[in-house]
Amino acid sequence: MLARSLPNLSMIKPRSDTLLLAVDFAGTFVFAMEGGMAAARANLDLLGVMVLAFATALGGGIIRDLLIGAVPPGAISNWRYAAIAFAGGFSVFLFYQFVEEIPPSLLMVLDAAGLGLFAVAGAEKALEFGIHPLIAILMGGITGVGGGTIRDVLLAQVPSVLRSDIYAAAALAGAALVIVGLKLKLPRTPVTIAGALLCFVLRVVSVWRHWNLPKVAGY
Amino acid sequence: MLARSLPNLSMIKPRSDTLLLAVDFAGTFVFAMEGGMAAARANLDLLGVMVLAFATALGGGIIRDLLIGAVPPGAISNWRYAAIAFAGGFSVFLFYQFVEEIPPSLLMVLDAAGLGLFAVAGAEKALEFGIHPLIAILMGGITGVGGGTIRDVLLAQVPSVLRSDIYAAAALAGAALVIVGLKLKLPRTPVTIAGALLCFVLRVVSVWRHWNLPKVAGY
Amino acid sequence: MLARSLPNLSMIKPRSDTLLLAVDFAGTFVFAMEGGMAAARANLDLLGVMVLAFATALGGGIIRDLLIGAVPPGAISNWRYAAIAFAGGFSVFLFYQFVEEIPPSLLMVLDAAGLGLFAVAGAEKALEFGIHPLIAILMGGITGVGGGTIRDVLLAQVPSVLRSDIYAAAALAGAALVIVGLKLKLPRTPVTIAGALLCFVLRVVSVWRHWNLPKVAGY
Repeated sequence: MLARSLPNLSMIKPRSDTLLLAVDFAGTFVFAMEGGMAAARANLDLLGVMVLAFATALGGGIIRDLLIGAVPPGAISNWRYAAIAFAGGFSVFLFYQFVEEIPPSLLMVLDAAGLGLFAVAGAEKALEFGIHPLIAILMGGITGVGGGTIRDVLLAQVPSVLRSDIYAAAALAGAALVIVGLKLKLPRTPVTIAGALLCFVLRVVSVWRHWNLPKVAGY
Repeated sequence: MLARSLPNLSMIKPRSDTLLLAVDFAGTFVFAMEGGMAAARANLDLLGVMVLAFATALGGGIIRDLLIGAVPPGAISNWRYAAIAFAGGFSVFLFYQFVEEIPPSLLMVLDAAGLGLFAVAGAEKALEFGIHPLIAILMGGITGVGGGTIRDVLLAQVPSVLRSDIYAAAALAGAALVIVGLKLKLPRTPVTIAGALLCFVLRVVSVWRHWNLPKVAGY
Repeated sequence: MLARSLPNLSMIKPRSDTLLLAVDFAGTFVFAMEGGMAAARANLDLLGVMVLAFATALGGGIIRDLLIGAVPPGAISNWRYAAIAFAGGFSVFLFYQFVEEIPPSLLMVLDAAGLGLFAVAGAEKALEFGIHPLIAILMGGITGVGGGTIRDVLLAQVPSVLRSDIYAAAALAGAALVIVGLKLKLPRTPVTIAGALLCFVLRVVSVWRHWNLPKVAGY
């Protein structure tokens, strides 16, 4: 196992897929806006808006990278991520009146798209770093929901992903599809798209149809 | 700079003691059940139960491994840990009526056993990774109580280990005994057992006799 | 052991500036006292006091080191940091009556000095580890405020740095000055002093003049 990790830090590199990177940046921006909006609603100042934008957008990927041994995490070694996260937070700060008027359903759809992308990219990166497929699925889920979890912890709230809806579950489903597809040696691009799409559709439909995960019987 | 970390992951390896591993898995299962029960009591759904089971059972060891430079952490590089944690959480979910009827005193005793084991194993692993003995004791304590701390933070509560009882203190005592014993070149197995036992007895007796640590005078 | 980490800790090394180390230890002690006082006020026991002393004093540096790939973090690989943090916490515990009588303004000034030092040292260490200058500034800020953030999260409160005042902003300003100075190849010592001083003065003046960062318009 340890042998496996060797190439880890030096030889294996995420593919520099320009399209993937562009979509990744877009997801970062959306998540940063959501973090900034949560901060503004909690009456935090400019700095609080920027911190929650950063944490929400990049926290999940940072946790994943620390856990799979990809240090420094991508969000630290590539300054563009932080710049985009801060741009997302700052645009909330500047244009809060307009941002507040974005329909919640549009925000939810954008968020679901970001979630799908993060989950899929996170699972693939974990696999590339030699993590066991089952754990790679988990890493995809953490990439998708970790940022929102940190945001809620900083706001001293029970993380919303623990509470309700198909949110983390959608991320895990998308990640699982990708991992199974890659293990079956299916071509990477369609598998990635299918995984992100599965997560997206599950999330949107579950909000629309009010699906929830079961709770312990009797509660 | 990456070259720097290479020897880190390849040369030093935790001993593959089968008995220790079996006991470690048992402790993981007990801690996972406790995390799952806390989630169920907080009215979280299936996913919340699984997340808190994972975090409670493996959070302490993950923090320790990140701090001592054992990356990826054992809980990530060995999928069995996650599988056992999820099994613990899922069994709480499935059999919640029965689990709720386990007498609290039995749960406390099982938890004390898990605590002793985690503290001892954590301290030994830190020492193997070349951490200073004083810090290795601390790492033993963190291994024992870190998971419960993350669980409480996720439930937006002040961690119970900070509040009361001899809990973390018992973990530190057990870890200290092990480190002193190993530094005196005493044989490993009896030292490990003695350390875990010290933690276990301290914890159980402190609950039974209502021992507490002192607080700041005047409070 | 160290053999393993050697390349880690030896090739890229913070300069062993004795003065800087002494000041760093002083800052650690002050932050530890503040953590211990927060724990005492929250009615935590001896262990809670020590944990919050440790987390407040060393949490920021530990997060920074994990993020920039300096593992094990300095606070783990050099036991003196933990010893000083515990000494700070324990002195609060022993002398709480006296500690409580320290005028808040003196504590604030000491804290501002510690903040300046941590911010500057954190940014410099990040730069030495090859982190992009923009992110290095961020790492300086995290070094300064990370410990207090963890302290507040453990007390189940929204971190005070997110709420108000020029605190993190002062840390970022000091870190930015240092990074700009070093990038301009100005001599290290005066640049370091200037950065720490800028942070210190900004913080003290902002408390004195009740400066705050702007909030989202309409709030």
